[in-house]
Amino acid sequence: MERNLDRAVASAEELMTGVAARRAIRAGQWTSHTSGIAPGHVQGNVVILHSRDADEFLRFCQRNPKPCPLLAVSEPGEPLLPTLGEDVDIRFDVPRYRVWRKGELVAEPTAIDELWESDFVTFVIGCSFSFEQGLLEAGIPLRHIAQGRNVAMYRTNIPTNPAGKFHGPMVVSMRPMTAANAIRAIQVTSRLPNVHGAPVHFGDPAEIGIADLAKPDFGDAVEILPGEVPVFWACGVTPQSAVMEARPELCITHAPGFMLVTDLLNHQLAFS
Amino acid sequence: MERNLDRAVASAEELMTGVAARRAIRAGQWTSHTSGIAPGHVQGNVVILHSRDADEFLRFCQRNPKPCPLLAVSEPGEPLLPTLGEDVDIRFDVPRYRVWRKGELVAEPTAIDELWESDFVTFVIGCSFSFEQGLLEAGIPLRHIAQGRNVAMYRTNIPTNPAGKFHGPMVVSMRPMTAANAIRAIQVTSRLPNVHGAPVHFGDPAEIGIADLAKPDFGDAVEILPGEVPVFWACGVTPQSAVMEARPELCITHAPGFMLVTDLLNHQLAFS
Repeated sequence: MERNLDRAVASAEELMTGVAARRAIRAGQWTSHTSGIAPGHVQGNVVILHSRDADEFLRFCQRNPKPCPLLAVSEPGEPLLPTLGEDVDIRFDVPRYRVWRKGELVAEPTAIDELWESDFVTFVIGCSFSFEQGLLEAGIPLRHIAQGRNVAMYRTNIPTNPAGKFHGPMVVSMRPMTAANAIRAIQVTSRLPNVHGAPVHFGDPAEIGIADLAKPDFGDAVEILPGEVPVFWACGVTPQSAVMEARPELCITHAPGFMLVTDLLNHQLAFS
Repeated sequence: MERNLDRAVASAEELMTGVAARRAIRAGQWTSHTSGIAPGHVQGNVVILHSRDADEFLRFCQRNPKPCPLLAVSEPGEPLLPTLGEDVDIRFDVPRYRVWRKGELVAEPTAIDELWESDFVTFVIGCSFSFEQGLLEAGIPLRHIAQGRNVAMYRTNIPTNPAGKFHGPMVVSMRPMTAANAIRAIQVTSRLPNVHGAPVHFGDPAEIGIADLAKPDFGDAVEILPGEVPVFWACGVTPQSAVMEARPELCITHAPGFMLVTDLLNHQLAFS
């Protein structure tokens, strides 16, 4: 049933589909982060670059599919992303953007139509929200979600495969779990290559260059209980970090946690 | 090309198919263990029971699919196993049998036609030889194979689901590998549920009741190098152990390592 969104603020319970979420975001009725809205729908990381940088970045993503799984790449100058849903317009449909000039954050607008240029290419990259649904549905508890925290993320010593100006270490997210749950989690996420796929490591953090799990580089630390091992997945912060370090003339991304909500279902991403 | 087996002893190189292997075994030209012959073909653990015990044992296997993956169950009294290959006759086609009366080993014959009874039911249970091929093909080194040893096996504190007189702890096999190889090994073996499937545990052996990895209950210990974790799979010794402890009036099994060679290809076992 169509809900009435003809007022100032929408509630999360009204935003059960990608279409409803994007309509509220575009109307300024939803200005918060997107965690928990349109449950079951794929959300994506956004990177927008000038065409000359986009060609290199596309090669970077192709060479690093685990941290940079591409859900969509737009035509140059085309703000619509028809493979991700009905009337997805990247100029309006993200609740908060970040604008970077030569690697420096210069603005956090809620729309980018006034910044739009005719050679902009949009990249939408899979996000761990999708595989976390799969893990929860498989009965695997996720501590950071239970505790209402952001997932813990770490820079590693695992190099990415460079492409032109884009390079840098892989960033991983970490979720502690029992060995039995880790085995199941590997099975569940192996079926989801478009949202980072199987873990890249478990166990000793030092083996991938992480000195202290209590001090994540991004997000919030979570406790690791006796009988649990840390399990590490490639993270969508990797391409963002590579873009920041490359310092292109202009780059526009989503603000952390303020993702693009699509019409795709997480279940559609799984191969069977 | 058909090889000439019309002499006393066959060489392993001649036994490239299940048919060739069984023909040599039946003719007494191959009397050794079956590791390495008919490469790529499924080999199975064998348990033969009187019908009254077989009904309970079938329920035991159904309730414990990871240690007891059934490749075939014969009709009562029927020595042929047509789903496993051309003219597979369980009375002759295993190179060495073990005959158990009330749990005591009483004979190790090379054929059991003289012992055959009209209500015997044969169980053929998947074996880790099959998934080890998958691991090696995936580029995962297996130390016990490289060192020419038997895999290390351990009794655990993981209970099986009992059925009638059959019960007891799960026995596991252990292979040390890096975390990255363990993740890949979980993916490879998850696709092979008929040969024990995904591991049941990795990491701390004490969590599954193993006191000392250097002292396996069956097979040979292997070293665990820095950066490696022990990975544990449910093992086909579990049902054998359950049968021995149940002490049925009569039971016939293969001798350890002297398996039934089938016409199935290991690759046929994988779901895609």
